[in-house]
Amino acid sequence: MAFKVEQALHMVGGAGETSYATNSRIQEKAIYRTKPILETAIAELYGKLLPERMVVVDLGCSSGPNTFLVVSEVLGIVGDLRRRLEQKPPEIQFFLNDLPGNDFNNVFRSLERYEKMMEEEKGDLLVPHYVVGAPGSFYGRLFPCNTVHFFHSSYSLMWLSQVPQGLESEQGVPLNKGNIYIAENSPPQVVKAYQEQHRRDFSTFLKSRYVELSIGGGMVLTFLGRKSEHPASGELSYLYGLLAEALNAMVSQMTDDVIKYIIIDVKREGERNHGLYICLGPVAWSSAAAKHDKLLKDRHK
Amino acid sequence: MAFKVEQALHMVGGAGETSYATNSRIQEKAIYRTKPILETAIAELYGKLLPERMVVVDLGCSSGPNTFLVVSEVLGIVGDLRRRLEQKPPEIQFFLNDLPGNDFNNVFRSLERYEKMMEEEKGDLLVPHYVVGAPGSFYGRLFPCNTVHFFHSSYSLMWLSQVPQGLESEQGVPLNKGNIYIAENSPPQVVKAYQEQHRRDFSTFLKSRYVELSIGGGMVLTFLGRKSEHPASGELSYLYGLLAEALNAMVSQMTDDVIKYIIIDVKREGERNHGLYICLGPVAWSSAAAKHDKLLKDRHK
Repeated sequence: MAFKVEQALHMVGGAGETSYATNSRIQEKAIYRTKPILETAIAELYGKLLPERMVVVDLGCSSGPNTFLVVSEVLGIVGDLRRRLEQKPPEIQFFLNDLPGNDFNNVFRSLERYEKMMEEEKGDLLVPHYVVGAPGSFYGRLFPCNTVHFFHSSYSLMWLSQVPQGLESEQGVPLNKGNIYIAENSPPQVVKAYQEQHRRDFSTFLKSRYVELSIGGGMVLTFLGRKSEHPASGELSYLYGLLAEALNAMVSQMTDDVIKYIIIDVKREGERNHGLYICLGPVAWSSAAAKHDKLLKDRHK
Repeated sequence: MAFKVEQALHMVGGAGETSYATNSRIQEKAIYRTKPILETAIAELYGKLLPERMVVVDLGCSSGPNTFLVVSEVLGIVGDLRRRLEQKPPEIQFFLNDLPGNDFNNVFRSLERYEKMMEEEKGDLLVPHYVVGAPGSFYGRLFPCNTVHFFHSSYSLMWLSQVPQGLESEQGVPLNKGNIYIAENSPPQVVKAYQEQHRRDFSTFLKSRYVELSIGGGMVLTFLGRKSEHPASGELSYLYGLLAEALNAMVSQMTDDVIKYIIIDVKREGERNHGLYICLGPVAWSSAAAKHDKLLKDRHK
């Protein structure tokens, strides 16, 4: 593939109508629903360590209202705990992580407004904290050894680090033609290729976090899975199916000259009607990608 | 003043012709010239602590080639030292700090290219490191207590945190009319107002860093001063004088409707011919600012 997912992949920046910031309700709900789990995990960690300083990392923070939602929840939980345990408030250093293409400018420029709001809301009860941005792929090392107390990640770990290898036959024939993920008509090799990519990615993720976590630290990871054993069933596969159809229809009507822009633009667009942002980075590009690669090769001949 | 300096002040983002990235040769030279001081400071710190992990902060990192120049220098110095002392390489965590309006997106997106270049250049000798962005004013707390080994700041500490108070008489008459900083014709009250602002700012700066520095830590701070005792002499005052003239000429020809845009734009423009970026955030706005404030007041009547 000509694309490097880490460079190209990001949610739509800014705060406009099609931005991730205004289209991230599902992700917001997920954070609220997992709050009890977050509370238990942080209570356990805090009660055990009673740290003077805590390092908390949000992996895949994106750029929008949910970015600070996690910060608020952790501050609230730790604030309540330390009062209940009659401890001096710890200082919390938050690292907001996402790929380098994420709109960190928007995050940082919203930070002052957020801090002001928190100060007005909590007053003296606000736990002292510092927010920084950590760009990079979580499928690799991001922090020095033993420096992180708590990792949080919501709705991020289902994105793969790259388009899986093995989506073509030995003769170079696309095996998943017309699809952008595992679909009803995907052959078993394609299913295996995606599963294998996820296994490799998740293994790298866990090894990296294992080294970075300090003793007594913890993690809460929330990401999409499927209830059925059949890999092509479930709502997500259906959504990807629809999106693949739309993409194919677009690609079939396009000239070579605009294909490359389409691919990039589609990556930046959301599936707004479903309230779910679908980014095509981590999935196969099928015909659109093939056409784009051919275009590039022809240009460089 | 209607402006909050912390929100509005930043170097010109991106990498275009008028960007800070392409107009920062003086700042680059300053970093090269202070390298021996940096070497001595880091050698002392490293030799004393032999840390497994080091936290290094660059205050006022901006967005351009110099941003990574400091990272490279520290990596080179520590790499040489640890080999000379036959130590395992430490892990270095770099915090690049600037105001939230800085173009951190540009910094983060350049990071991958930089890392690739460093890996090719240094290979196995490259000291493991992680780069993050810390938005916020250094005239206040930025990090938890005792967590930073080394602070570096070059060409940043001469910017004040705000326009000084006391640039108007008790009757509201501007005392420094036509100027944007201390000038030949500035009355003693104006000189005192700027000096007092610097004293307050620098004191806050030192108190904050004192708390954040870990035991055995150090700092290298480079910023503009003046050789003469007379506050209006020196090249900088001359440059500000020219800029004030240009501003006044512009303001006198403008209608009220465009004044506010001019003020904002001038903040984003550089004095390219002198290779020195002059940002008007931290200095007095004199007639332009007064006119702008009057405009806003009239609108809200």
